[in-house]
Amino acid sequence: MTKWLLPESLADILPAEARRIEELRRKLLDLYRVYGFELVMPPLVEYLESLLTGHGHDLSLRTNKLVDQLSGRTLGVRADMTPQVARIDAHLLNREGVTRLCYCGSVLHAKPMGLLSDRELLQIGAEIFGHAGVEADIQVIELALESVRLAGVEHARLDLNHPGVSRAIIEADPALARNAEDVADLLSTKDVTGLRAFASETPLQAGSLDALIALTQLYGGGEVLQRAREVLPQLPQVGQALADLEQLAGFLSDYEVSFDFADVRSGYGYHSGIVFAIYADGWHDTLVRGGRYDGVGTAFGRARPATGFSLDLRALAGGLAPAEPAKAVRAPWGCDPALSAALRALRAQGIIVVQVLPGQQQSLDEFVFDRELVCEQGQWKVRAIQ
Amino acid sequence: MTKWLLPESLADILPAEARRIEELRRKLLDLYRVYGFELVMPPLVEYLESLLTGHGHDLSLRTNKLVDQLSGRTLGVRADMTPQVARIDAHLLNREGVTRLCYCGSVLHAKPMGLLSDRELLQIGAEIFGHAGVEADIQVIELALESVRLAGVEHARLDLNHPGVSRAIIEADPALARNAEDVADLLSTKDVTGLRAFASETPLQAGSLDALIALTQLYGGGEVLQRAREVLPQLPQVGQALADLEQLAGFLSDYEVSFDFADVRSGYGYHSGIVFAIYADGWHDTLVRGGRYDGVGTAFGRARPATGFSLDLRALAGGLAPAEPAKAVRAPWGCDPALSAALRALRAQGIIVVQVLPGQQQSLDEFVFDRELVCEQGQWKVRAIQ
Repeated sequence: MTKWLLPESLADILPAEARRIEELRRKLLDLYRVYGFELVMPPLVEYLESLLTGHGHDLSLRTNKLVDQLSGRTLGVRADMTPQVARIDAHLLNREGVTRLCYCGSVLHAKPMGLLSDRELLQIGAEIFGHAGVEADIQVIELALESVRLAGVEHARLDLNHPGVSRAIIEADPALARNAEDVADLLSTKDVTGLRAFASETPLQAGSLDALIALTQLYGGGEVLQRAREVLPQLPQVGQALADLEQLAGFLSDYEVSFDFADVRSGYGYHSGIVFAIYADGWHDTLVRGGRYDGVGTAFGRARPATGFSLDLRALAGGLAPAEPAKAVRAPWGCDPALSAALRALRAQGIIVVQVLPGQQQSLDEFVFDRELVCEQGQWKVRAIQ
Repeated sequence: MTKWLLPESLADILPAEARRIEELRRKLLDLYRVYGFELVMPPLVEYLESLLTGHGHDLSLRTNKLVDQLSGRTLGVRADMTPQVARIDAHLLNREGVTRLCYCGSVLHAKPMGLLSDRELLQIGAEIFGHAGVEADIQVIELALESVRLAGVEHARLDLNHPGVSRAIIEADPALARNAEDVADLLSTKDVTGLRAFASETPLQAGSLDALIALTQLYGGGEVLQRAREVLPQLPQVGQALADLEQLAGFLSDYEVSFDFADVRSGYGYHSGIVFAIYADGWHDTLVRGGRYDGVGTAFGRARPATGFSLDLRALAGGLAPAEPAKAVRAPWGCDPALSAALRALRAQGIIVVQVLPGQQQSLDEFVFDRELVCEQGQWKVRAIQ
C-alpha cells in the first residue's frame, strides 16, 4: 500500500475546484449576512452524547468516534452541524427573541451516504431559532432557493413534506407504531409489495394498509394536497399538517413546488414540522435539505422553535461548470526597489502577479499568464504577452 | 455531566469573533492569490501513515486516531496540513517547475500545545515547492510578515534560525548523537546547568560542551551571526548554515530580525534549512512558524525542495481588537411585493436587512439597527432610527 493513497470516498480538492468552492462559500455566507444571519463556528469534535442528543440511531452510525486523551471519554467527529448550532442557540447565546445563525464547516461521515457521495462534506447552512410561525419557514425556504440560484443552478425544484402526516398514520395503529422504522423504510422506497407482505404477517387495524399505500401514491404538484385530504384518514394531526403545507405553498406560488408524502427520511429524523428538499438536473443527490425541528433544543435545557436548511458546498460546486483559469501577470525576480514597488501596486489592485524564481520554470493550473511586468528605460511596465 | 459541556480546550466561536476570523481568512487567502498561490483542500482525515510520513514522534502524539469503517485501517485526524500539501505537490500535481500552494482548514490536536492553546486550530498557510534557492525563502518570509501586517499586528518581530547549526554540532560527537532528543530539550530551554550535568555523566569530545553552552547564548540581533562564527566549531555544515542566514538577513534588512540558535524545536521537526518564527506583543504564543523542509516529499516518491509557513487564524484573531457590530436595517414582515422588491434591492447592495418576524422580538449581537424600512404613502423607504 503506497503511502499517498487516500482512504475510500475521501479526496484532495485541487486548485480549480478549490477556488470554485471558496468563491461559492463567500457568496453564500455574504447572502446569509445581508439577511441578518450571524456566523458561528462550533468545534470539529464534541462529546458524543452532545452530538447525538435528540437524534436517531442513523446519526450515531454516521459519526466517527475517538477517545479524548484529556478526559478518557468518547468524542465524535461531527457528521452534521445542525445539532451543534441548536446547542449554541439553546445554551450559549441564551436569547429570548428570534435568533438567525449561519455556519460553514467540514463534517465527516463514517460511511458515504450514497454510492457516489464523499465522506467529507463542506456543510453550509442557516437556521432561525425562536419563531414557531410559517413566516420563519418561508424565509428559510426562500433563502435556500436563493442560495442555489446564486450558485448558478437553473431550474431548481422544491419538494415539500410534513412528517406529521405519516407519523400520525403510523402512531394511530399500535402494530405500525411497534414497527415504525421498518414501515418508514418501506414507505420511503414506495415499496407497495413490501407493505402488503408486512400487512399479511402483522394484523393491522382496518384502513391502515390503505392509508400507507395512499401515502406512496401521494406525490406531485399542488393537486396532491386536495387528494391527500380525500384519501387519508381524518386524523387531527393529518389535517393540521395538510393545512400547514397549504398555507406555505400559498406563499411560495412563485416557485415550482411539489409534494412527496412517502419521503419520510429527510435529514436525520429530528424534524417536527414542514420539511423540504431542493433538487436540480445535473446533481444526482438532493442539493439542499431543511425543515422544522422544534424539539432539538430540549435536550440542551431549552425548547426553542427552530427551522433551517443546509447543503454540501462540495457537491453543489461539483455540478457547476468548471471555472476558467484566472489571468495573471508574469514578473521576474529581483532586488530592484522599483520592481518591489511595482509588484506591491499591482497586487494592491487585486491583480495576480507571479514572480518567476531564478533558474526554474513556473507551473500553473489555476492561473494563465496574459501579461508580463518588464523594465523599459528604467520603468517597470505591464505589457501583453504576444 | 450536562450534555452541552464541551471537552477541555475546545470552544464554540460566537458571532463577533467568528466574523472577525472569516474576514481575516478572506484577506489572507486573497493576499496569497495575488502572489500566485493556488488553493488546495486536503481531506480532514487520512491513513495515519500518510499523515505522519517523514515526521517525528511529536506529530504522532498530537494526532487523534480513529478506525476507518470501510477499510478497518487506522485513520488520523490531521494535526498539521503542511505534510498533506507536500503530498499533493509530490504526488498529485506532479509538476516539474515551481508550484505555489496555499490552504486553510481546521486541524485537531490530541493535546493542547500550550497551557492556553486550543486543541482545534484554523490553520492557514502558503508553501513554495520546487525551488531550493534563498529567493523562495525570502518570498515566503515576506508573505508571512505581510500576513500579520494585513491582519493589523503592529511591531511584529522575526526570529531566524537554521537547525543545521545545532544538528552539525550534535552529530559531530557520537555521545551527543545518541542522546540527540534530550540534548535538544536542554538546548531549547537554555538549560546550562542541565547540559553541564549531562556532560559530567556522559564522556563527551573536547569542545562539545563549550559548543552547546555557546548555542544557548547565541541569541539577539545581527551581531550574533559574527559571534557564532567565532565561538562555534569550524564544521562545514555550520559554516554553510551561517552563510545562508547571512544572505537571507541581507535581503530582509527592512525588518527587525533576530536570531536564536538554541530554538531547536520549530514546528514538527521536519525542517531541513532556514526556519523562522514571527512574534508580536499581545500574543502569548508564536504567531507564525515556517521554514524549509526539502525532505518531506521523498516519502511520497519525489524529493522536492519546499519552504513555507502557517499560522492559526483563531489565535491571530484572538489578539486583535474586537470588531464593532455591523449596522443593519430593520424591516417588517409582509407579503407586499413592493416590500419584497425593496428588500431585494437593499440586499443586492450588500446592506444588511433583518426582517422582524411577527409576534417576536429580534435578538442580535453582531448587528445593530440604525435604520428601518418603512412604508410612507405607499413607498418603502429607509430612514434613520431616532
